[in-house]
Amino acid sequence: MNKIIDDLNWRYATKKFDATKKINDADFEIIKESLRLVPSSYGLQPLKFIIVNDIDLRNQLIPASYGQTQVKDASHLIVICAANKMGDSEVDEHIENIATTRDQDAENIKGYGDFMKSTIARMTAPQKSAWNSKQAYIALGQLLHTCATMRIDATPMEGFDPASFSQILQISDNYSPVLLCPIGYRDQEDETQHFKKVRKSQEHIFEKK
Amino acid sequence: MNKIIDDLNWRYATKKFDATKKINDADFEIIKESLRLVPSSYGLQPLKFIIVNDIDLRNQLIPASYGQTQVKDASHLIVICAANKMGDSEVDEHIENIATTRDQDAENIKGYGDFMKSTIARMTAPQKSAWNSKQAYIALGQLLHTCATMRIDATPMEGFDPASFSQILQISDNYSPVLLCPIGYRDQEDETQHFKKVRKSQEHIFEKK
Repeated sequence: MNKIIDDLNWRYATKKFDATKKINDADFEIIKESLRLVPSSYGLQPLKFIIVNDIDLRNQLIPASYGQTQVKDASHLIVICAANKMGDSEVDEHIENIATTRDQDAENIKGYGDFMKSTIARMTAPQKSAWNSKQAYIALGQLLHTCATMRIDATPMEGFDPASFSQILQISDNYSPVLLCPIGYRDQEDETQHFKKVRKSQEHIFEKK
Repeated sequence: MNKIIDDLNWRYATKKFDATKKINDADFEIIKESLRLVPSSYGLQPLKFIIVNDIDLRNQLIPASYGQTQVKDASHLIVICAANKMGDSEVDEHIENIATTRDQDAENIKGYGDFMKSTIARMTAPQKSAWNSKQAYIALGQLLHTCATMRIDATPMEGFDPASFSQILQISDNYSPVLLCPIGYRDQEDETQHFKKVRKSQEHIFEKK
């Protein structure tokens, strides 16, 4: 029908990766740059992507992932973390980045910074952390599309123990792991690749007004 | 560098759409099908996409969007809604869909359904609704990538009044609007298209373990 639809139909939540196949460096650079370009609310990018290569760490993460071996067998393991905090200093840093990138005087965009600060100040701490977490899901949605376009397999995972991940990976207190995405190449013996994709019909999910 | 990176660099949060330019039907079908293929937790797809074409309704939505005229000027307005509820009947419906799609006996996948039900039963009502909302962000991430690939402009929007949207669009009590995404074609006079994209460096957002 169309390359995009073909790509999205090709992808599936990979159950078993071929542990011998590695994503080459050039392709992984594209994935990293695509993650850097992920949009976020106000452009604040309250995310950190931890790439776990160490095999001992990856073995330790299996029980913390309820036995899901994709965290070990995939070529690369991406842990998407969201910032726990959001406030004036993060906005100031962003305004500084805008000024530098666009060669503007930070004074001239101070008003925009103040607007962001006042919006954020109205949120409670749990609301801020929930807001940051949602940005991780935007990253996941884009990442899965990027991988499908490159015919790289991926497994989006919410089911893991964040506290154990934080401890095993010694993640800074400023961030919490929100989503996992092992990526690589499907094992030929992964039967699930042959299962028909299950989706609701367009009639179910669209409404016209 | 690469088509994916070019596409993601090309996109920006469009401030002003060219109201005379419409996405053709064939392209919009691709976007709809891509949204149908969006992945979600357990594949439950707790989302509804409302496409607002009616110009009177779109005018009424401007104040509910704090004056952002993209909701009127864009070719198509997509309102991403998340289900307020999630429970046994939704899981049963999903299991039924799996069985039909894959020509399986629903009895044989009952165990999988029970597993989902028990996981969901442990969540409070606000947790369920937050979980459903997060799936909307996966859809947004994928949608923005799809649009960029097709060189269709888009504006991801969190800033609007959900209660007014529900009322104006008479959205069923089962769903809440979570995100807006007007899509179409940028106005040549939208200055922001020429602004340099602001992102943190890779050093800032990646960590290797």
